[in-house]
Amino acid sequence: MRNQYQQQLGRVLTELVEMAGGVRAALAAATRALLEADSQAAESVIAGDLAIDEARERIEEESFDILARQAPVATDLRMLVASLRMVADLERMGDLAVHVAKVARLRYPTQAVPAVLVPTIQQMARTADEMIAAAAEIVATHDVQAARELEAADDEMDRLRRSMFRTLLSDDWASGVEPAIDLALLGRYYERVGDHAVSMARRIVFLVTGQHPAAV
Amino acid sequence: MRNQYQQQLGRVLTELVEMAGGVRAALAAATRALLEADSQAAESVIAGDLAIDEARERIEEESFDILARQAPVATDLRMLVASLRMVADLERMGDLAVHVAKVARLRYPTQAVPAVLVPTIQQMARTADEMIAAAAEIVATHDVQAARELEAADDEMDRLRRSMFRTLLSDDWASGVEPAIDLALLGRYYERVGDHAVSMARRIVFLVTGQHPAAV
Repeated sequence: MRNQYQQQLGRVLTELVEMAGGVRAALAAATRALLEADSQAAESVIAGDLAIDEARERIEEESFDILARQAPVATDLRMLVASLRMVADLERMGDLAVHVAKVARLRYPTQAVPAVLVPTIQQMARTADEMIAAAAEIVATHDVQAARELEAADDEMDRLRRSMFRTLLSDDWASGVEPAIDLALLGRYYERVGDHAVSMARRIVFLVTGQHPAAV
Repeated sequence: MRNQYQQQLGRVLTELVEMAGGVRAALAAATRALLEADSQAAESVIAGDLAIDEARERIEEESFDILARQAPVATDLRMLVASLRMVADLERMGDLAVHVAKVARLRYPTQAVPAVLVPTIQQMARTADEMIAAAAEIVATHDVQAARELEAADDEMDRLRRSMFRTLLSDDWASGVEPAIDLALLGRYYERVGDHAVSMARRIVFLVTGQHPAAV
């Protein structure tokens, strides 16, 4: 039977997983705003960031409460500190979804992404989403195997970004400087979402195995 | 007379300030690499990131050690957790200096920044440096007044970034897409350094005053 302390610790992890769900929804809506020039979706992501920030504050306060009342040591202490960082990773991913939504809003009613790069952005968004889902699964289950898939997704993101740069810099690029800058920054935002997912996974893998994911 | 525990806590803060000095040096060298097409400076920043990562690990382990052995509560607990985040901010600023250095290396022997934007990049680098210095001073002295200057520097960074975009998108821009993308990303890197400095300062101000800097 679990004591109250372990229940509190478990609740922090559950809330992190829920928060990851909120971030996935925000990023999906931001991508829709971007690719469909959907200004309502953009506004909902920008306004909805408040809920993600509130989730962060709530999880932080709970973690502090456990740290202050229970004075955990060893693995529990490290898990709580890792939680405080993972919640910061998730909040930052929410900010990045807002950045994507703001590009959509800035260019509205024009669709900011030229047709030739729509598939790349779709694939980046899908990859980022899979990476957040994998990070959440690792938080929920401590399944370090999922971390391996996450590193593979990170390679895919890298490949997509290089492919995007080739398109932006090719002689065929006819959309000019402004969309090229938008796309370079958008690519960076999706890539950073993936980086934060990798950070989350590595924190858990390191806690569980004492090894960095590359060595698992 | 201070006890051993308070000495440990003070050492963590001192090491954060030293680490901030290392980050300032890395960013200054990266900017020199960029503006003078100095490949040796670029390589030294890229190789030197290891020392910044090691400083992070050392400060983290010391913080964990205090958390585990002393089980601090209240302000000391929050200061230690804030330290763990500030050390992550500083490590990330070091990564951003590496990104700047890698742009310099990628374009070498060409100077990546067209002459018209050299003053803007110089000013961004100077502003970022001042922001790291101000954040370190706030860590060292808990002088919340310095946080006000830091928010003003953040506004300056914002102004510089908008001015850069106007140049990149003006009819006079004759350098094409590739340098425009480089500059947009470089502007983002310097801006993010500043953001991390603001985060550090806000953490201290909040600990000291219980208020966010805007309200100080």
